[in-house]
Amino acid sequence: MATKKVSRIAVLTSGGDAPGMNAAIRAVVRTAIFNKIEVYGIVRGYSGMIEDDIYKMDSKSVANIIQRGGTILKSARSDEFKTPAGRKKAFNNLKKKEIDGLVVIGGDGSFTGALKLSEEHGIPVIGLPGTIDKDCYGTDSTIGFDTAVNTAVENIDKIRDTADAHDRLFIVEVMGRDAGYIALNAGIATGAETILLPETKTDIESVIIGLKRKERRKKLVNLIVVAEGDELGGASEVAKVVKERLPKIDTRVTILGHIQRGGSPSCCDRLIASRMGYHAVVALNEGKRNVMIGIQNGNIVHVPLEDAISKKNQGIDQELLKISHILSI
Amino acid sequence: MATKKVSRIAVLTSGGDAPGMNAAIRAVVRTAIFNKIEVYGIVRGYSGMIEDDIYKMDSKSVANIIQRGGTILKSARSDEFKTPAGRKKAFNNLKKKEIDGLVVIGGDGSFTGALKLSEEHGIPVIGLPGTIDKDCYGTDSTIGFDTAVNTAVENIDKIRDTADAHDRLFIVEVMGRDAGYIALNAGIATGAETILLPETKTDIESVIIGLKRKERRKKLVNLIVVAEGDELGGASEVAKVVKERLPKIDTRVTILGHIQRGGSPSCCDRLIASRMGYHAVVALNEGKRNVMIGIQNGNIVHVPLEDAISKKNQGIDQELLKISHILSI
Amino acid sequence: MATKKVSRIAVLTSGGDAPGMNAAIRAVVRTAIFNKIEVYGIVRGYSGMIEDDIYKMDSKSVANIIQRGGTILKSARSDEFKTPAGRKKAFNNLKKKEIDGLVVIGGDGSFTGALKLSEEHGIPVIGLPGTIDKDCYGTDSTIGFDTAVNTAVENIDKIRDTADAHDRLFIVEVMGRDAGYIALNAGIATGAETILLPETKTDIESVIIGLKRKERRKKLVNLIVVAEGDELGGASEVAKVVKERLPKIDTRVTILGHIQRGGSPSCCDRLIASRMGYHAVVALNEGKRNVMIGIQNGNIVHVPLEDAISKKNQGIDQELLKISHILSI
Amino acid sequence: MATKKVSRIAVLTSGGDAPGMNAAIRAVVRTAIFNKIEVYGIVRGYSGMIEDDIYKMDSKSVANIIQRGGTILKSARSDEFKTPAGRKKAFNNLKKKEIDGLVVIGGDGSFTGALKLSEEHGIPVIGLPGTIDKDCYGTDSTIGFDTAVNTAVENIDKIRDTADAHDRLFIVEVMGRDAGYIALNAGIATGAETILLPETKTDIESVIIGLKRKERRKKLVNLIVVAEGDELGGASEVAKVVKERLPKIDTRVTILGHIQRGGSPSCCDRLIASRMGYHAVVALNEGKRNVMIGIQNGNIVHVPLEDAISKKNQGIDQELLKISHILSI
Repeated sequence: MATKKVSRIAVLTSGGDAPGMNAAIRAVVRTAIFNKIEVYGIVRGYSGMIEDDIYKMDSKSVANIIQRGGTILKSARSDEFKTPAGRKKAFNNLKKKEIDGLVVIGGDGSFTGALKLSEEHGIPVIGLPGTIDKDCYGTDSTIGFDTAVNTAVENIDKIRDTADAHDRLFIVEVMGRDAGYIALNAGIATGAETILLPETKTDIESVIIGLKRKERRKKLVNLIVVAEGDELGGASEVAKVVKERLPKIDTRVTILGHIQRGGSPSCCDRLIASRMGYHAVVALNEGKRNVMIGIQNGNIVHVPLEDAISKKNQGIDQELLKISHILSI
Repeated sequence: MATKKVSRIAVLTSGGDAPGMNAAIRAVVRTAIFNKIEVYGIVRGYSGMIEDDIYKMDSKSVANIIQRGGTILKSARSDEFKTPAGRKKAFNNLKKKEIDGLVVIGGDGSFTGALKLSEEHGIPVIGLPGTIDKDCYGTDSTIGFDTAVNTAVENIDKIRDTADAHDRLFIVEVMGRDAGYIALNAGIATGAETILLPETKTDIESVIIGLKRKERRKKLVNLIVVAEGDELGGASEVAKVVKERLPKIDTRVTILGHIQRGGSPSCCDRLIASRMGYHAVVALNEGKRNVMIGIQNGNIVHVPLEDAISKKNQGIDQELLKISHILSI
Repeated sequence: MATKKVSRIAVLTSGGDAPGMNAAIRAVVRTAIFNKIEVYGIVRGYSGMIEDDIYKMDSKSVANIIQRGGTILKSARSDEFKTPAGRKKAFNNLKKKEIDGLVVIGGDGSFTGALKLSEEHGIPVIGLPGTIDKDCYGTDSTIGFDTAVNTAVENIDKIRDTADAHDRLFIVEVMGRDAGYIALNAGIATGAETILLPETKTDIESVIIGLKRKERRKKLVNLIVVAEGDELGGASEVAKVVKERLPKIDTRVTILGHIQRGGSPSCCDRLIASRMGYHAVVALNEGKRNVMIGIQNGNIVHVPLEDAISKKNQGIDQELLKISHILSI
Repeated sequence: MATKKVSRIAVLTSGGDAPGMNAAIRAVVRTAIFNKIEVYGIVRGYSGMIEDDIYKMDSKSVANIIQRGGTILKSARSDEFKTPAGRKKAFNNLKKKEIDGLVVIGGDGSFTGALKLSEEHGIPVIGLPGTIDKDCYGTDSTIGFDTAVNTAVENIDKIRDTADAHDRLFIVEVMGRDAGYIALNAGIATGAETILLPETKTDIESVIIGLKRKERRKKLVNLIVVAEGDELGGASEVAKVVKERLPKIDTRVTILGHIQRGGSPSCCDRLIASRMGYHAVVALNEGKRNVMIGIQNGNIVHVPLEDAISKKNQGIDQELLKISHILSI
């Protein structure tokens, strides 16, 4: 790193929080300091940028946070930042502090704002994919997904205990408004008989037929894992149909909800957050701008923010779906 | 144990399952075998008794189950057992196998059935309090409570992470239809600002005033823990009122639900289940009948099933409620 | 609390750290503030008192710590404090700040120092039993024990998995230099065939005979839980004897060690720490001095520090030992 | 799967057990049944093959095991199988049952035996990499690694709590006789200042210099993570050197040991085990023989068993090591 391209950078977290965001902040801060780059933390995302809630960070600011859920920089929505006036106000606060590079940890909504800021005011921006849904183009991994899916699995295991004790059907809803990765992985890992995803059209008729067959075979324990964004409308809607059609089956609904966002990050999430945070600073320092740091086949890649925002992930692995059916017989 | 009063006993689990039931079954089976008493397992509670779903157990039947949630004997509701005819049919199955003593692990509904069976057919019955709600007269501890409350605490900790990241108000519903023990203990242990219980009248007005005050002080992270049986009607109802009165606060609801029933039992639940299971067999062997094994001040007590069914627990510890208010300032 | 007996107090943690110490600090600080008493934190126990490493705490100082292991006030050993000169120096630092009451969270070594400080310099002292070993006279519960024993149980469960897969004998050492509570409770909760405690003389001959019998019966999975303070000298010493006498058995040693001190405190530990911390301030405020806050049969008691230091706990519950033998057949 | 190449297969686990082996067994069994192939379980690996401890499995044999640590088929070492006579005896037992395909879940030692069996007796063999060390050529993932490294991380987090409370140096030994993957990943994820691996020559002098520098800076909390196979000889040896050279530092050793082998498998391990188990049967059914199922860049690959045994993994990621140094400043 012969000549530095940045000398003072800022980092923020934005959008829904995800376990591992703190590990990413730590990596950004310490890699910057190692490279003699000053580093600032922006509190509550773009809101804090507009309100000048920005403070200088040092190595100790990020001590003892790698294992913590949430984000020490907090996150918030900002409608004002969606306007050119809001972004101008925000940029002026960065300019005042002579900040010449920005790292944004969040999802595609956060990247959209970052890209506009850069286009309008010239500041280079690096995005890190921080989202439990793994709904992000250009990267195999996102910060938070592995923890979220393990939280889902641990809790569905508990529900299995009670489902098994009572020969009940449980319909468990996991997070995922547009993406079924949590549902698919958690469903296979807990041996769910049925997995309902936003990416595939739910054939409720065949679900009902499957349940009827199991009812006859007296295999009464059943588990349906459904992503919140399934086009049928989540666990409660599925339960309504099942209860109407199969009133004799003892059916219960559990919505895992926000517990999937919190908790100490898994080893995997800490590692990718550390790697991505390191490479965000390296990229800024090498003059890269407006890219997202992604991981593809284990390697770091630089994905143009434009692509990360506009392109679609390749979708659900059909083979995994097939395996899930075969293994839950 | 000079002269045995029983020579062949049966054990069943009934009602909502609770972590530690398997540890209790193990203790009943092995203590019986140690005392040269034959022991049978009845599957799916009173339903299995009626349907003669009863099998002989040995030491290996209960190997490697002390750490498992759920109940290997399964549980079920039985409307037929609520009739004298049903109980007669059930008793005949016990009689056929020359079973002369019964251990019932469950809540007060289960004890009611056991007591009627004993009164009508003379078989001595011992009850073990297995219920996560701790809603049981005559005992300081019930099998499953400690695990359930720790599961609630671990998950509310996770919700805290995300609440803190977003300065949100979370309203978390825990189990407890008639009893607020889970809500009270989990609420204090997670630093909840407000705890709503069935045992105390909820003054929603003062909750709103407290939230307003915190809104002004910009202490925006807030946690309300509410028992499902609160007279206001659970987390969703509370949220409705809060959203009407304080629309600016970002309010979310999480219902922990059935995850509180499952999971590997805590050390405490395994211990009390082991002690109670042991003492159930000792009691039968000493000729005791129709009592529940309880623990009071650390000591084993024998509570008449009649009392366990009809009497009320002393209720919520007012001092704990007071401490919870002071510590969440 | 009409007239206050103290107006400015300090709190410290001392000795081995225990999960729940942070919950106790939080309770002391917030109860003090609620009662309009100023409160100071002393860093690194008596060392920090001597070096004047003392800072004013407010409600925010203890935000978001109830769920954390370790102690934000840190702990340390101090040889200097064992001398009258050291204690004088320490007291002068308290005097300078007009501190008129002290809460000490730790074990009996810490209480000895506190009592001497009080006797020599007149400052009233309240002790809170914070020790994972539960080796403390006058209280049924100590802060940290429940978490430590659950950590032991969770990890021994994991060892069971691999012991079972290989038909191996595992000898697991848990903490407890003078007290076998962790070993006894964790041993019963994990179904250990043998439990070795400092309080009972280990009859190694009968352990060997038991293993031989099981070797013949081909019940090859075996688990011995041994407290580090067993008079045989810990797991490695026991393994040496077993390997000499029964060379054909595949024997492995695991020493759980310091993992038992850390981790997020259990619900139980957070609750007793909160209650005890609250009552420490109440006691100071009512003019009590030189007592330990204990819990007996669920009720708060005030045990003279002299007794807490010099008297012995009643020892191991013989019935539990008997139950452990019967249940591991 | 038009024409089946096998009609009756067997599955075994061998070598050190790893979390996820049960998920792999389940996948083999159910995929076989789905394809109308009969499937047998061999108990205790090659020992059981020699002793004819083999039983027919059905879909229910593997119900409710996906979440369990250990292996329901048990594992064992067999010296007899290392001889041609032993393998002949073993093969005869397979032949007797008309078993025409074999799935071996284990490490390279297990694959060596499998390959010899196939070469000598013609039975096609498929290997699945089941080892927590990830020390396996031809695959990015092995069954058990992700769980083991998360267990290490969770426990080192606990040690951090107590290290931090006492400003101590902890030297923690993790598994890995020939490979440092657990040490490297767990070390980065817990923010270890120093990570010692078998793959890199340990410059103990620079470790001592680093500790001295930190001693001067009063950054006293320190964590060294060392793989058991480091050429210095594990945590106890490292501690010996540190204590000699830096006697003032309060240094403690923890050896995590066998807890890293057990426990409920992570979502990741359940998934790769399920995929690999599925593909093992598909491969046999398509006529493939003597290959290991691996995962490279997310895709299933078939690695000749010969390569899996004789070739070396590409070794430690140097960039990760560099990141670990920068992030622990």
